[in-house]
Amino acid sequence: MPIETNELTRRDLLTMIGKAAGGAAMYQAMSSLGHAAESSYHGPVQLAKAKPGSSVIILGAGLAGMVAAVELRNAGYKVEVLEFQSRAGGRCWTLRGGDRFTELDGTAQTVGFAKGNYFNPGPWRVPYHHHAMLDYYRRYGIKLEAFNQVNYNAYVHHSKAFGGKPQRFRHVQADVRGNVAELLAKAANQGALDTAVTKEDKEKLLASLKSWGVLDKDYRYVASTAVSDYRGYENDPAGGLMALAKPSQPIGLHELLQSNLWGQIGAGNVYEFHSTIFQPEGGMDMLAQAMARDLGQAIRYNAKVTKIEQGDRSVTVHYNDAQKPGATRRASADWCVCTIPASILAQLDIQVGDSMRAAIDSLPYGSSMKVGLEFKRRFWEEDERIYGGISYTDLPIQQISYPSTGYMGKGPAVLLGAYNFENTNSYRFSSLTPNERIRLVLEYGSQLHPQFKAEFLNGVSVAWHRMGWILGCYGKWTDELRGQHYKNLAQVDGRIVLAGEHVSYIPAWQEGAVLSSLDAIQRLSAKAMSL
Amino acid sequence: MPIETNELTRRDLLTMIGKAAGGAAMYQAMSSLGHAAESSYHGPVQLAKAKPGSSVIILGAGLAGMVAAVELRNAGYKVEVLEFQSRAGGRCWTLRGGDRFTELDGTAQTVGFAKGNYFNPGPWRVPYHHHAMLDYYRRYGIKLEAFNQVNYNAYVHHSKAFGGKPQRFRHVQADVRGNVAELLAKAANQGALDTAVTKEDKEKLLASLKSWGVLDKDYRYVASTAVSDYRGYENDPAGGLMALAKPSQPIGLHELLQSNLWGQIGAGNVYEFHSTIFQPEGGMDMLAQAMARDLGQAIRYNAKVTKIEQGDRSVTVHYNDAQKPGATRRASADWCVCTIPASILAQLDIQVGDSMRAAIDSLPYGSSMKVGLEFKRRFWEEDERIYGGISYTDLPIQQISYPSTGYMGKGPAVLLGAYNFENTNSYRFSSLTPNERIRLVLEYGSQLHPQFKAEFLNGVSVAWHRMGWILGCYGKWTDELRGQHYKNLAQVDGRIVLAGEHVSYIPAWQEGAVLSSLDAIQRLSAKAMSL
Repeated sequence: MPIETNELTRRDLLTMIGKAAGGAAMYQAMSSLGHAAESSYHGPVQLAKAKPGSSVIILGAGLAGMVAAVELRNAGYKVEVLEFQSRAGGRCWTLRGGDRFTELDGTAQTVGFAKGNYFNPGPWRVPYHHHAMLDYYRRYGIKLEAFNQVNYNAYVHHSKAFGGKPQRFRHVQADVRGNVAELLAKAANQGALDTAVTKEDKEKLLASLKSWGVLDKDYRYVASTAVSDYRGYENDPAGGLMALAKPSQPIGLHELLQSNLWGQIGAGNVYEFHSTIFQPEGGMDMLAQAMARDLGQAIRYNAKVTKIEQGDRSVTVHYNDAQKPGATRRASADWCVCTIPASILAQLDIQVGDSMRAAIDSLPYGSSMKVGLEFKRRFWEEDERIYGGISYTDLPIQQISYPSTGYMGKGPAVLLGAYNFENTNSYRFSSLTPNERIRLVLEYGSQLHPQFKAEFLNGVSVAWHRMGWILGCYGKWTDELRGQHYKNLAQVDGRIVLAGEHVSYIPAWQEGAVLSSLDAIQRLSAKAMSL
Repeated sequence: MPIETNELTRRDLLTMIGKAAGGAAMYQAMSSLGHAAESSYHGPVQLAKAKPGSSVIILGAGLAGMVAAVELRNAGYKVEVLEFQSRAGGRCWTLRGGDRFTELDGTAQTVGFAKGNYFNPGPWRVPYHHHAMLDYYRRYGIKLEAFNQVNYNAYVHHSKAFGGKPQRFRHVQADVRGNVAELLAKAANQGALDTAVTKEDKEKLLASLKSWGVLDKDYRYVASTAVSDYRGYENDPAGGLMALAKPSQPIGLHELLQSNLWGQIGAGNVYEFHSTIFQPEGGMDMLAQAMARDLGQAIRYNAKVTKIEQGDRSVTVHYNDAQKPGATRRASADWCVCTIPASILAQLDIQVGDSMRAAIDSLPYGSSMKVGLEFKRRFWEEDERIYGGISYTDLPIQQISYPSTGYMGKGPAVLLGAYNFENTNSYRFSSLTPNERIRLVLEYGSQLHPQFKAEFLNGVSVAWHRMGWILGCYGKWTDELRGQHYKNLAQVDGRIVLAGEHVSYIPAWQEGAVLSSLDAIQRLSAKAMSL
C-alpha cells in the first residue's frame, strides 16, 4: 500500500511539479497552439461595410449562394437570391417521408420513409477540418453528432474471395498488420534491411513490429490469445463458469493477398474521412434550412434563370417561373454572385469574357448515384452487431452504410444501400427505372445481408446526372483542365463572380462550396470598395 | 450520356439481377448470419420459475448485484439487496456537480461541475461486442451515443521527442504505414522475400503496399499531394483563388523510431476499443439508475455487511447501518448472491468452504486513478480542432480524453485529465491530496495543452484503491492465480454464489460483471430446482 511511502513519494512529486512546469513553459514558448494553421478559414469573413444602396443578386440558394447572401447582407448589401427549385440547399439535401422529386425525363419518386427517418442523397458527412462548415454549424446552432466512418465489425467483401462470404473489417485489418509485420521482421532478422537502417534503428524497428503486429517471440503472426485481443476471438472471454475463450484463426498471407480485401480497409485513413467526422443531427439539410429561414423573403424560389447580362454599372438576370412559365422577368443589381453549376451555366446565355466562357464550357461533371433503403428493423445491429459504419464490396453497389444515429432504435430504419461515385456503375444503375434500381440493389445487397429482401419496406434513388437542376454530382477537374481554366473560372468578370464546389480545390465537398463563396465575395467586395 | 445506351445497359442489368440472385442464394445457404456467435450471451436469461416462497439475498447493488436481483425477481424469487453505499451502481458511477465522496482516510471531495457536466470515474465506454450490456441498455431504454476512441487529430506525445512538442495522431499513423510499406517493398524488390512468398503473391504484395502505404512509382514514401491526402496538408486545399494547397512533410523512419510514438497509435486496434464503441447519453450510471428505480424498495442502502452465515436451508447475513452504526441486523434467505469485491470480502466472516475462502483471500486488486477537469471552454475543440478521442503521452497522466458529446457546445466542459491504470503512477498520484493531484495534472497537461492553467475551473480525482468500499479497481488475475483459484471462486458453495467482474474473464469491464452474474444465477437456479 502506498500509505507507508506517502511522505517520500509526495516530496518527489512536488519536485516533479516544478519539472513539469518547466516542460510546459518550454513547449508553450515553441508552440503555435495548433490554431488550425493548415486551413484557409480563420473565422467569420470580415467584409467592408457596403456603400449605401449597393446590391447583389445571387443565383442559386445552395450553400455557396446562401453563404454569399448572408455575409453580403450582413455587410449591408441589398441581396436577392434566385433559386430554380422550390426549396433551398441544392445538393445539401435530405429526403424524408412524403418528399417527391423528378428526374430529367419526368420520372418521379415519392419517398415512403416512416416519420423521423431520413436519407442524405448528396453530402452526408463533414470532416473535422472543414472549418468553415463547422463554423456555420456553430453560428446557426446546428448540433453535430459523430458520423461512424470506420466500423471494425462491418464487412469487407469480394464476390470471388472466401466463397463470396463477407469478412469482418477487424479480421482483415489485424491480419494485414500482422502479416506485414511478420514479413518485415523476417527481412530485418535476415539482414535484408542492413543497408537501409542502422543497427540501433533495426532493434527499435523489430520491437515496434512485434508490438504493432502482435508477433510471438519468434516474430511470427499466429493464432493466440494476444492476437485475438486485436482481431477478436472465436469465442469471447466470458463470466463465471461459462465456456472458456477460444482464440480466432488469422487469415494467412496468401489467402489475404488473393482475396483483394486489403484494398477495402483503407478509407478511414484518408484525411477527408479521418475521425472525428460529423453529421448534423436530423439530416444534412439542417444548415440549409436554417440559412434559408435566416434569408427569408430574400430568396425567390422557382426562378429559372435564362440569361445573365452585365453592363458597366449593373447586372441584369432574366428568369421565368419554373412552375408556371410565362412572361420573362428581370432582376437587376450592382453585382452578381452566380453559383449555378457549370453543367447548367454552359447552357445559358451569360455575358462574360471569352476566358470565363471557355472555362464554363470545359468543365465536365462527375456522376454519382445513391440509394436509400428503408427496412422493417435494424437487422444489421440486431443480427450482425454492426452499429453504423460502412461495408465495402466489389459488387456494383460498392458500399452499404448503416445509420450513425438512433442506435438500437425500434421500428423501421434507413441505410445507404448503394453509393456509386464517379464510375460506370452509377450510369448503369441510373439507366434503369427507380424500381429496377431498388430491385437490383436488393439482389446485390443480399450477398452481404441475406435479410435484405425479407426486411425491405421501400427505397429511393438519386442519380445525380439525371437531376435536371445539376446534371451531375460535382465539377470534375483534371490537372490539365485546372491549368487551363481554373483561374479564369474563379476571377471576377466585370460585375460577376462564380462560386460553388466547382470553383474550389475541394470538389464535391460542401467546404469547397463555402470557401469558394467566401473567397468570391471578398474579392467582389474589394472590387466594389475600390470603384 | 447514358441515354443512348439505355436499352442495352438495361438488358445487361436485368441479366445481372439473375446472377446477383444466384450469388445471394449461395451465400445465404452457407452463412450463419453472423448472429454474434462469438459471445456467450444469447439474449435475456431464461430462469426456471422459482418454487413458491423461494428467496434470495443479494449483496451489493452494483451491476452484477442488480442484474441478479432483477432476473431472480422476474423468475419469481423474493429478492432483497443489501448495499453498503447510499447509492446503487458501485463502480458504474457518474460524478456531477454537488456530488460528494470520501476516501479511506476521510478526505472528502465535492464536485464543482456546472449543471449538465459529468465525469465517469469508473467504466466510461461500452464495446459493441459487450452484448449483455447492450441488451440491458435496450431493455431499459437507455440511449447510447458513439464514444470517440480514435481521433486522428488528437495528440501522441513523448516528452523527449520532437522537443517535447505533441504530434498529431494522423501524422504518426500515416508515417508508420508509409515507412513500413517502403521498407517491405524494398526488401521484396531486392528479392529478400523470395523464399517467403511466391512470385504471384509478391506482385500482389507490392501493389498492395504501394496503395496502402501511399508509395510513389519507385516505392518510396515521400512528401506529395497523394501522401497529404492521408496525413493531411501543410495548407489544406481551399476555394476560389485562396492560397494553393501545400503538401506536408512526412516524418522519416529514424526520427519516427527514435520518438517512441509508434507505440501510442495502437489502442484503437484493440478488440475492446474497436469502433463502434459506445457511452450512455448523460453518464455511465444511467443503467444503474434505471435498474435501481426498477428494484425500488428491494434495495436496502447503507447496509454494511459484517458476516455471512449459511446452513443447510438458508443464508443469514449480518449487517449494520453504515451511516448510523448500532445494533447488528440480520437478513435471511434461501440463497445468496454475493457481489462484494474480493478485496472487501477477504476481510469478512463468510461461511464458505476452504477452497472458496482461499480463492477470495488470494485475489489482488489492480489500482487505477482518474482525474476529471472542468474548463471554462472547449479550447481543445476551438483552438486545436480535437473533437473527442484520446491523446496519449509518456507523462504520468498517460491519457487526456476529450468529451465525446456536446461537440461545439458553449460554456464549461469536462475532460479526463489523467488515467492511470494498474501502474505506479496511480499510487504516486493518489499519495497526494486531491488538490495536489489536480495541480500536478495541470502541470503535466500543460505540456500538451498550454491553455490548461488559464482555462481551469475545478477538478475531481478518484483513486480507486483509496475508495473504502472496494480498495482497488478490479480483480487482478494472473494465469497462475486463475489456474489455482478461479473455479473455486466461481463455484456455488452450498447456498452462496459469488458474482462480479472479479468472477469473470473480462476483468474491469461491466460486461464481465453482468455475464458473471447471469452465469451465477443460472447455476444457482438449477441447484434450487434440483433440491
